[in-house]
Amino acid sequence: MLENQRSGKFVVGMDLGGTKILAAVVDQEGHILAEAKSATKAEKGPEYVIKRMAQTARKAAQQAGIDWSAVGGVGVGAPGPIDPGEGMVYSPPNLPGWDEIALGPRLSDTLDVPICLENDVNLGTLGEYALGAGQGTRDMVGIFVGTGVGGGLILDGQLRGGFRHAAGELGHMIVLADGPVCGCGNRGCLESVASRTAIERDIQLGIAAGRKSIIPKLVREKGRLTSGVLARALRKGDPLTVEVMGRAQWYLGLLTASIVNLIDPEMIVFGGGVVEALGKQFVAPIRVTARQYYIQQAGAERVRIVAAKLGDHAGVLGAAVLARRLCSHSPIGRDG
Amino acid sequence: MLENQRSGKFVVGMDLGGTKILAAVVDQEGHILAEAKSATKAEKGPEYVIKRMAQTARKAAQQAGIDWSAVGGVGVGAPGPIDPGEGMVYSPPNLPGWDEIALGPRLSDTLDVPICLENDVNLGTLGEYALGAGQGTRDMVGIFVGTGVGGGLILDGQLRGGFRHAAGELGHMIVLADGPVCGCGNRGCLESVASRTAIERDIQLGIAAGRKSIIPKLVREKGRLTSGVLARALRKGDPLTVEVMGRAQWYLGLLTASIVNLIDPEMIVFGGGVVEALGKQFVAPIRVTARQYYIQQAGAERVRIVAAKLGDHAGVLGAAVLARRLCSHSPIGRDG
Repeated sequence: MLENQRSGKFVVGMDLGGTKILAAVVDQEGHILAEAKSATKAEKGPEYVIKRMAQTARKAAQQAGIDWSAVGGVGVGAPGPIDPGEGMVYSPPNLPGWDEIALGPRLSDTLDVPICLENDVNLGTLGEYALGAGQGTRDMVGIFVGTGVGGGLILDGQLRGGFRHAAGELGHMIVLADGPVCGCGNRGCLESVASRTAIERDIQLGIAAGRKSIIPKLVREKGRLTSGVLARALRKGDPLTVEVMGRAQWYLGLLTASIVNLIDPEMIVFGGGVVEALGKQFVAPIRVTARQYYIQQAGAERVRIVAAKLGDHAGVLGAAVLARRLCSHSPIGRDG
Repeated sequence: MLENQRSGKFVVGMDLGGTKILAAVVDQEGHILAEAKSATKAEKGPEYVIKRMAQTARKAAQQAGIDWSAVGGVGVGAPGPIDPGEGMVYSPPNLPGWDEIALGPRLSDTLDVPICLENDVNLGTLGEYALGAGQGTRDMVGIFVGTGVGGGLILDGQLRGGFRHAAGELGHMIVLADGPVCGCGNRGCLESVASRTAIERDIQLGIAAGRKSIIPKLVREKGRLTSGVLARALRKGDPLTVEVMGRAQWYLGLLTASIVNLIDPEMIVFGGGVVEALGKQFVAPIRVTARQYYIQQAGAERVRIVAAKLGDHAGVLGAAVLARRLCSHSPIGRDG
């Protein structure tokens, strides 16, 4: 079926994660009509996962009560590195066995619609930009704090891919030269001092050294140290959590200032598990530190540093925005 | 005289510094036909300096043997912060007494040609991009190492000004949280560990602590610790200089990696006094460190990290490129 024979009324936004596949049917105003979710079962290999992605997309359409032919395109967020032009996924750490998989073309064959592929964090950023906290801006940086720290850039209204399509790896900007070892093998990356992994490490080191904390009790109740556990300990004023989180926020403030000093964006949006659990409370101290470290103080308060608005939906909504822009040529939201 | 009545065959590129004013007449191929130079005498105030700038521009035209009416526009690089749209210069540290001076409009009245104003370091970057090391790229970052460290970004062929026209302040990106105090009042900025000021500080600390070095002897011969003195000490294998310079280069490598991780440009160009004195020898170790710290190793060697080519002329040539683009609508070089 040719692209222009499709109605283009709806698009499907998808997120391919290491543990789950999400799909959402999104209308021209950027509203989610229905969603579907599956376990990725990455261990069964790319063939299986691609079939499962197609099923999940069709299931979302079914739940929205629309015929598949009403879907004008599918946007897919996948863990990098990827090549969006060729629709290729290289070897993401959380998809073992994937090595140069032509996800875009294969999914397009199966679903019989145009597929647009993009890095998942870039799509989270695009979602917040077009439909979330960044609405009305032209320049926005998304910083997503989870077990790692990822990001994306919108510059002058365009998603910045970069020369090797590797832009936005802000978790590996160096803020503390020769600091703690990072998952990437280097030292002093932001991720090594301000990710949930780093926060957890420092809390456990404190507890091991005999410091008192309510964290062990909360972890026993919840089963593990989640962002929710951190949020609860912080609200209860647990001194160890307050100190460790404060330090992570300070580093995030330094990172924010470095980014502002380099590219001078209009807005920085913080998202991800830790931010969702704590909201504005998490962002406020980051903003204070960042503004101390801007070099050009003129108009410093005009650069907004805010919490994300779309939560878990940023990725699929960003994928839908991409699908609209690239597949059906009728953008969602402000561009519509 | 109306803009389109001018021939637009030549433009003048100017650089307004704290101690000197440079002007160069540049033809359509980007060649410098003639130059003129004056002392700024900033202490005499903006009125005087603007008159002197106009005289220097006319003198350059005279030396090129062209009539002033053959000049289609003048590009001016000035120390930031500036507002290029309004042609305003705010209060640069090295131009005391300047506070919201309408340099563009006033110079335009005096010289009777369109004036384009831009941050001086941005123009150095634009010069290298259009006519120097960056020729043939679409994305380039300029890093200029002198008493401070400044920079500029060309993204997708466009100079990145930023939301507050404050982009490119990469000397104040934080690479060593809580590190040495920087001239900006914060701690751990790149400039506090890798500028010539920082190099000089560390060499003097070493000498004060009793370490042997040929630097004091060379300084006695030259009068002061110049970039040339550093280059000579390094070539002679002076251990203190080798160590201190090596550390600065390591920090510059970390900064380069941070920038590549964030925006993934095609090329990083190092310029400024220290780099000019040492050339490729200075950039090689920076490249080695930077490539260790890229997070996406795929195609890492495709990102080029090189020395600038235009030396002292980068600024006036960048100003000429700007004047061509904005004032006379017939670009120099690749765009011509």
